[in-house]
Amino acid sequence: MVRRVHAKARWDSILDGSTPLTIDALTRLTAALDDDLQATNRAIVAKMESPVALIPQLAAHLVAAGGKRLRPLLTLASARLCGYEGERHVQLAACVEFIHTATLLHDDVVDESVLRRGLASANAVFGNKASVLVGDFLFARAFQLMVADGSLEVLKILSGAAATIAEGEVLQLTTQNDLATTEQKYFDVIRGKTAALFAAACEVGGVIAGRTPAECAALATYGMDLGMAFQLVDDALDYNASVAELGKTIGDDFREGKLTYPVLLAIAEGSQRESAFWARTLGEGEQTEQDLATALSYITRHNTIERTIARAEVFAASACAALSALPSSAIRDMMRDVAAYTTARRY
Amino acid sequence: MVRRVHAKARWDSILDGSTPLTIDALTRLTAALDDDLQATNRAIVAKMESPVALIPQLAAHLVAAGGKRLRPLLTLASARLCGYEGERHVQLAACVEFIHTATLLHDDVVDESVLRRGLASANAVFGNKASVLVGDFLFARAFQLMVADGSLEVLKILSGAAATIAEGEVLQLTTQNDLATTEQKYFDVIRGKTAALFAAACEVGGVIAGRTPAECAALATYGMDLGMAFQLVDDALDYNASVAELGKTIGDDFREGKLTYPVLLAIAEGSQRESAFWARTLGEGEQTEQDLATALSYITRHNTIERTIARAEVFAASACAALSALPSSAIRDMMRDVAAYTTARRY
Repeated sequence: MVRRVHAKARWDSILDGSTPLTIDALTRLTAALDDDLQATNRAIVAKMESPVALIPQLAAHLVAAGGKRLRPLLTLASARLCGYEGERHVQLAACVEFIHTATLLHDDVVDESVLRRGLASANAVFGNKASVLVGDFLFARAFQLMVADGSLEVLKILSGAAATIAEGEVLQLTTQNDLATTEQKYFDVIRGKTAALFAAACEVGGVIAGRTPAECAALATYGMDLGMAFQLVDDALDYNASVAELGKTIGDDFREGKLTYPVLLAIAEGSQRESAFWARTLGEGEQTEQDLATALSYITRHNTIERTIARAEVFAASACAALSALPSSAIRDMMRDVAAYTTARRY
Repeated sequence: MVRRVHAKARWDSILDGSTPLTIDALTRLTAALDDDLQATNRAIVAKMESPVALIPQLAAHLVAAGGKRLRPLLTLASARLCGYEGERHVQLAACVEFIHTATLLHDDVVDESVLRRGLASANAVFGNKASVLVGDFLFARAFQLMVADGSLEVLKILSGAAATIAEGEVLQLTTQNDLATTEQKYFDVIRGKTAALFAAACEVGGVIAGRTPAECAALATYGMDLGMAFQLVDDALDYNASVAELGKTIGDDFREGKLTYPVLLAIAEGSQRESAFWARTLGEGEQTEQDLATALSYITRHNTIERTIARAEVFAASACAALSALPSSAIRDMMRDVAAYTTARRY
């Protein structure tokens, strides 16, 4: 179980590098599923082929940029946890990664991002137009992969997730620059844009293994709550100066006027002066160069990074609890550790 | 059968309004399938619902803008031609329209369009970001509709079409401003971006009616060739000054540096002076206000609008011929007339 008691102390020790123990839970799970993951990578490369050269070129740029392959890993891990012995999980893991990649491509266009995982984003290199259209291709290709798999139940889960992701993205757009955004709406946004695909990625692993509806639902809950924790931490890290060294920009959400959890908490408790600051910088989107530093000082004052992480840990604990519905195994332990890692990661 | 002999004479008479006879083939088919089309419209409105208000708002803007519903009509007509008596064709027609609408939304972002069917385009009203994300939603929703239908064969056809559309769009992007674009590549572009969905829309009508593979393939050929004809005419009309009155801008393709058929023909036969003009305006994208008029004069000089229409008529004739594989009926006659209408339409 993830412990919340020493959230602040642990967070501090992680930031100063003295607590590596949970950091590599993801690395261990990745190592345990290495064969599957290699096969998934091969499937990804094979299935992004097209006679239209720009498609594999742009897709290769994304593959080269790396990424943790967290979502496909969840499909692979869930399938193995459920005792699955076939090959379908590899194709479905590739399909999950394609949906994720298509979303990233469109996100970067929408957010006008120039960096992705520390490298120039695809839209910065190939232009917005190519990013929109290659995103569409990857999305369509993901569905072709699902159709080739041939399970209507899997198709239902993943097409539902795709629609929910788009709804979450649109909701995020409508809450942008809206200081009246409620916590509830924020949670709706991240449930849609992030957690829904985590949930679907896990659930399909159980479905192809022929597990009971209750077990599949438990996997979906694990994925959903893990996704919520993951996004909360992401939103916390966007205000954490120490990640800037790791090739990630910080303050993106601030510049884009996104009302994320650390900011919502700070706004709720802000002085009149602080309220005026948030209204100008996030509500009106009028920002000067010093404003990010001021935002960080307010966030520090209200301790909202730690509180965001603490909220993430509640979700991570719930994710771990959901796994109790499934048989004990080394993979299950690693999946629990990944939930802990998710709230402990620093980038 | 469509006749090519009097292509120029017919085209002229259509432009001056003296040949209405084929114009309303689409209207007649629409009337014949009125109940089905009304049901499809209801399905479209019902299925674009979402708790995220911007989604139905933006989608309603597109529905309000009208459109001929040509693609869903093809699904309905093909199903009825094949003697289909159930209700699945309505949901699949809605799904075809969703794929088309998602493509339009992304096209308008890519092309930076401000008008669509004579009204402000969605991206002009709601912004590029909303258009990208709502397009994603409609695409995902289309897949949910297909999954609800439950036929893996239908899913295969439509997911394949979706991937082909995206490939066509990306190929179009890479040929933009490229004067070395071949006719072959141009045909690849329009086969992907337009004809593939026409083909799929028709084919699924045969599939749900349980027709033979040969008959379904004939419907796909009809749709494919009809789509080729349709896009060729569209590309011709973009250089036809008389359509400007009908709420459609002309010269969009020219301004966007698209190497469409009327231009490819003119380039191939251009004088040195003309070549320099195309190199500057389309190759370099350096255009002044008078350039469209000059482009039109070159196109007129080489008679390439009529020649593009004539090429469209070859495809339309092939579309008609494909229908011979299916039983004679009033619907089949109307579908043939629609092919003729496609090359005769003026907007």
